[in-house]
Amino acid sequence: MREITSNKTRLWLPSIYNSLKKFPERRAGAGYHSESKAKEYKHVCKRACQRAVDQLRAGALAVEAVTAALVELEDSPFTNAGMGSNLNLSGEIECDASIMDGKSLHFGAVGSISGIKNPVLVANCLLTEAQKGKLSAGRIPPCFLVGRGAHDWAISHGIPPCPSEKMATKFSLSAYKRNKRKMEMAEKMDAGQNQEKKRRQSSENENGSGCLDTVGAVVVDSEGNVAAAVSSGGLAMKHPGRVGQAAHYGCGSWAENACNMNSYSAAVSTSGCGEHLIRTMLARECSAAMQSEDAHQALLEAMQNKFIMEFLWSHTTESMCVGYMSAQDSKAKTHISRLPPGTVPGKSLAIEGGVCRLTGIVD
Amino acid sequence: MREITSNKTRLWLPSIYNSLKKFPERRAGAGYHSESKAKEYKHVCKRACQRAVDQLRAGALAVEAVTAALVELEDSPFTNAGMGSNLNLSGEIECDASIMDGKSLHFGAVGSISGIKNPVLVANCLLTEAQKGKLSAGRIPPCFLVGRGAHDWAISHGIPPCPSEKMATKFSLSAYKRNKRKMEMAEKMDAGQNQEKKRRQSSENENGSGCLDTVGAVVVDSEGNVAAAVSSGGLAMKHPGRVGQAAHYGCGSWAENACNMNSYSAAVSTSGCGEHLIRTMLARECSAAMQSEDAHQALLEAMQNKFIMEFLWSHTTESMCVGYMSAQDSKAKTHISRLPPGTVPGKSLAIEGGVCRLTGIVD
Repeated sequence: MREITSNKTRLWLPSIYNSLKKFPERRAGAGYHSESKAKEYKHVCKRACQRAVDQLRAGALAVEAVTAALVELEDSPFTNAGMGSNLNLSGEIECDASIMDGKSLHFGAVGSISGIKNPVLVANCLLTEAQKGKLSAGRIPPCFLVGRGAHDWAISHGIPPCPSEKMATKFSLSAYKRNKRKMEMAEKMDAGQNQEKKRRQSSENENGSGCLDTVGAVVVDSEGNVAAAVSSGGLAMKHPGRVGQAAHYGCGSWAENACNMNSYSAAVSTSGCGEHLIRTMLARECSAAMQSEDAHQALLEAMQNKFIMEFLWSHTTESMCVGYMSAQDSKAKTHISRLPPGTVPGKSLAIEGGVCRLTGIVD
Repeated sequence: MREITSNKTRLWLPSIYNSLKKFPERRAGAGYHSESKAKEYKHVCKRACQRAVDQLRAGALAVEAVTAALVELEDSPFTNAGMGSNLNLSGEIECDASIMDGKSLHFGAVGSISGIKNPVLVANCLLTEAQKGKLSAGRIPPCFLVGRGAHDWAISHGIPPCPSEKMATKFSLSAYKRNKRKMEMAEKMDAGQNQEKKRRQSSENENGSGCLDTVGAVVVDSEGNVAAAVSSGGLAMKHPGRVGQAAHYGCGSWAENACNMNSYSAAVSTSGCGEHLIRTMLARECSAAMQSEDAHQALLEAMQNKFIMEFLWSHTTESMCVGYMSAQDSKAKTHISRLPPGTVPGKSLAIEGGVCRLTGIVD
């Protein structure tokens, strides 16, 4: 296998949430992670890293490897993506996912899709199909499909359906019942108050209604191509049809190889509250920020030509589970990053990261 | 009524399409506009301008005025938005729309919504509801809804349903039949060739499959607030569930009032091929470009404190219909901008515009 040809790659996994969480649940990704389940979250992360590296070792490009990692994360009942996703207001599972290839800058996304175990496979298939060129009669292939149409397109492209009832776990069903009771109680308490007052009180007394825990991954392959992908079951008790940042171009995932315009290859995957991540266009903003000169720049320049990869993560959620693995490693490293004791989720920020030396991949 | 307090406002209506059109149809917006129907396109544009100005004169803010303009454009059978939208591959109408308020930077969007005559009303309602704060139990209100969920949310918020069969016009139905025949012929011709060859030949021989004609509007009110909105029936023969730039944050519409970060208030509405407009994030890019120093800057500075508004439009489509009206005008001005003779749509660019002096609105 070849050595990594790009020596300037920056990867970032930010997770932003603007307020306290009231329904902490046991998942990997950004959100809340109980100490008792830490082992399970780390296992999921490790397996995802392993799948991506297996693909890279077999000669796959970044975009295929990142898809493999996401499938592993979606298949875990501990994440709010694919299997075991949050249920919406109607008790149904609707997922968002997107993927971006830093080499071609192609993008594929699905929103509010039901009955598909691995939404990232549909996003990846949209990306792949778009790269083949136009459809019959010169029609432009779609890059973003939603709802029933997305489901039917997936089936017609060989992605197997999965009954929604199989995608819900014992855990997600009991969380739904618990959340529904909380909602009903909150509405009962508010009854009699006028709409304005009710709204205001809600936002003062309650903060956040669901586990966030969008999952994402960023990969750099031996050619130096980057790719990013993200997948989410969305906020618990969301309105049916609600699409979050995971399906939004520039918001959930971003990847671009270094080129004339960009000194660095950058790949970003975001998790957290979709509505805020959409308005901040966080993935693309992070990628742009990574191009700018800053404190890290000096470090990178000092180590020029030594195949440096910078891997950062940040969160305003109580905790965030991250994993990392290179093709030289025999196993993945995982870490649950937590806000310092006494800080307030949504109001405090943790930024962590490291510089990983990739000395080149040999046979 | 007050005078406009902002003296730095830039409005842009770009329309981008990357290739020739093969199914020209008689609509307003970006795309192809036959000389014979020019009068009708201009009428629609005039009425839309008039509606917005009526609202402004009645004291409405920019975001309400731009909604009124869009409703008028959607109600016209000559535009590919709301009534008379393009039919998708299954012969159904699915619409996208979005709106952005430059004052609050709030955004509302619907994608792939059926059975609603005025999708922009749903987008506007999402924006308004989000500004009221959180829902019961601290749930975050959605900013982007799609498909059946979007339809149901609209109904529950007092927006009346409209049977899909009433939204299709004689014209859109006959265009569907014509397009279907073209597609079948193209597929028959390709039969026997392998998939790769078929794809390549398609993209060489045929270019674009539908009328584009997304409609949009940008408004500045007497307080200097800007707003932008866009609405589209999407590409003809699109796959069900396909969402284009009209529903995508930063791609279809963008509006931001002048602030510490931005010297200019800017509002942008884009039309054209959604897949390309998404990848270029055109609305937001235009807005950012309008902040930069350039030739127009000197002009604006020279006329400082004289309430200058700059209104630009550009297109790579064969033609584009634009309208303009201020509260001092008794009627709207409209214009069908065309590429110069002999130029190739998708490969040539027309940029036109003007500087309009708003001398202040008096009772």
